[in-house]
Amino acid sequence: MALPQQVNIVEVGPRDGLQNETTSISVQTKLDLIHGLAQTGLNIIEAGSFVSPKWVPQMADSDAVFRTLSAQTNIRYPALVPNLKGLELALEAGVQEIACFTAASDAFNIKNTNCSVDESLKRIALLVVEAQKHKVPVRGYVSCVVGCPYQGDVQPRVVLDVTKRLLDMGCYEVSLGDTIGVGTPAHFTALLEYLLPHIPATHLALHCHDTYGQALANIYAGLQMGINKIDSSVAGLGGCPYAPGASGNVATEDVVYMLQGLGIESGVDLTSLVKVGDRISRALQRDNASKVATAMLSAMQPGTNPKRVS
Amino acid sequence: MALPQQVNIVEVGPRDGLQNETTSISVQTKLDLIHGLAQTGLNIIEAGSFVSPKWVPQMADSDAVFRTLSAQTNIRYPALVPNLKGLELALEAGVQEIACFTAASDAFNIKNTNCSVDESLKRIALLVVEAQKHKVPVRGYVSCVVGCPYQGDVQPRVVLDVTKRLLDMGCYEVSLGDTIGVGTPAHFTALLEYLLPHIPATHLALHCHDTYGQALANIYAGLQMGINKIDSSVAGLGGCPYAPGASGNVATEDVVYMLQGLGIESGVDLTSLVKVGDRISRALQRDNASKVATAMLSAMQPGTNPKRVS
Repeated sequence: MALPQQVNIVEVGPRDGLQNETTSISVQTKLDLIHGLAQTGLNIIEAGSFVSPKWVPQMADSDAVFRTLSAQTNIRYPALVPNLKGLELALEAGVQEIACFTAASDAFNIKNTNCSVDESLKRIALLVVEAQKHKVPVRGYVSCVVGCPYQGDVQPRVVLDVTKRLLDMGCYEVSLGDTIGVGTPAHFTALLEYLLPHIPATHLALHCHDTYGQALANIYAGLQMGINKIDSSVAGLGGCPYAPGASGNVATEDVVYMLQGLGIESGVDLTSLVKVGDRISRALQRDNASKVATAMLSAMQPGTNPKRVS
Repeated sequence: MALPQQVNIVEVGPRDGLQNETTSISVQTKLDLIHGLAQTGLNIIEAGSFVSPKWVPQMADSDAVFRTLSAQTNIRYPALVPNLKGLELALEAGVQEIACFTAASDAFNIKNTNCSVDESLKRIALLVVEAQKHKVPVRGYVSCVVGCPYQGDVQPRVVLDVTKRLLDMGCYEVSLGDTIGVGTPAHFTALLEYLLPHIPATHLALHCHDTYGQALANIYAGLQMGINKIDSSVAGLGGCPYAPGASGNVATEDVVYMLQGLGIESGVDLTSLVKVGDRISRALQRDNASKVATAMLSAMQPGTNPKRVS
């Protein structure tokens, strides 16, 4: 039950978060968000996607975002890419790392992308070959690893099969997504017990949604199993498209707070992160979905007497 | 790391929850809440307090609540009682079980009740003697077990000392309260590792607040250490008096959902509980602070297509 000493956070707010927000914001506001996040110590920031604007209109300006970002720093800015056409556009915009996506549920994949999991894996295989020609690393996302909004329960053996195929075709890492946030620590423990004899923990990340409030408990269970890569979204940007009004991505602030308490290094400055999350929440005119941010911002108000405790 | 097979939930919404709500509600609405909770399978429901109405005006009608409840069923309805005067009033109203409270921080206890922890323990000792004459079991609450809004960090040895003294004077159980929700699983694991060589897990309960979003992760850590009694508040009633706008008590719905996922029996029907939490949230004109309730109520709306997954 030894916890990892260090965890890499993959910040997905500018992509997975913003693509599920209804308020649209300017390229400049997105750039401010991404640059703000980069200054908190986060060093992997998923900054946009090259999916058809017909499907995801909120990401239609990713090209403009990446053309500015590509001039920047040593921080990694992956983009989500669905196919060869998307890869071409991403490369033209200066993207140096991509992520691709499939699911552990045919029902979900067909509703989401109009093709079976098997068909999507064949498409991803072509994508990885082409990406590798350009020395572009590819990360794989698997959605619905513990439950699907259409088919219900999902079996760990399906997750293992899809994950292994993604790694075998050349993805450097697979992010296991509880897309609808239904899992509990028992689900994640059982899933990881099934996967880890076949796949090293260092090739896996957890992507937890907080729809049922379980995300941090699930992440804690994952850390106990040796997982040291966690996806999260500043201010809990995103929400859940399957349960309007409900929570979506786990908030990065809440993850960083827990990691700090656990003595696990993430390299992120929590106070700076809370301020970035506050700014984007105001720009989107939405409540901040991070409980840590809400508590810390309340404590920062003048006239709040009790001192913050560590 | 074996989890308990069964957990007792102590529902504190009608007391700890309502006393921190700003909207006042009628005795009848409180009775509807308590009777609704009793029908969900919850069998310990803290139903009010006999603290001076000058301090806690929201509980001024506890006498009327208990006079009706005392005619009821085999469910336990403890009341919070600060002193001998409160005990007298509680007994007159038909209360059959009480809870008393102190803290693991002098700074907090002095701000909260105008006396040191030591003085409060002397007062509780008298209370327990008198309660035992009436065969009234006494539960002890210890606030600020991992952090205090005034003094900061709290040492496990202080928690051990206060907890042992409460048990030694005759409390049947001590509920360990993270009053401001600052703890992480590491804090609870360290605290329980310190306490459990001296106190059996069966004499302890966890009372987690979700101010920093850590409550379920902390409860999961506690379950892993053998704790099988959890305090929670339907719909997360309460809020945090130390961080206006922030979350307070962990929501019972979220706890029950996690326990179900972990295969731990709580005896509570989650769908019924969500409906009770929805009713009281509407009566208080506040958002439901349970993420499980928000997701399940959204799924219950007509026109929400994806079926709920288990």
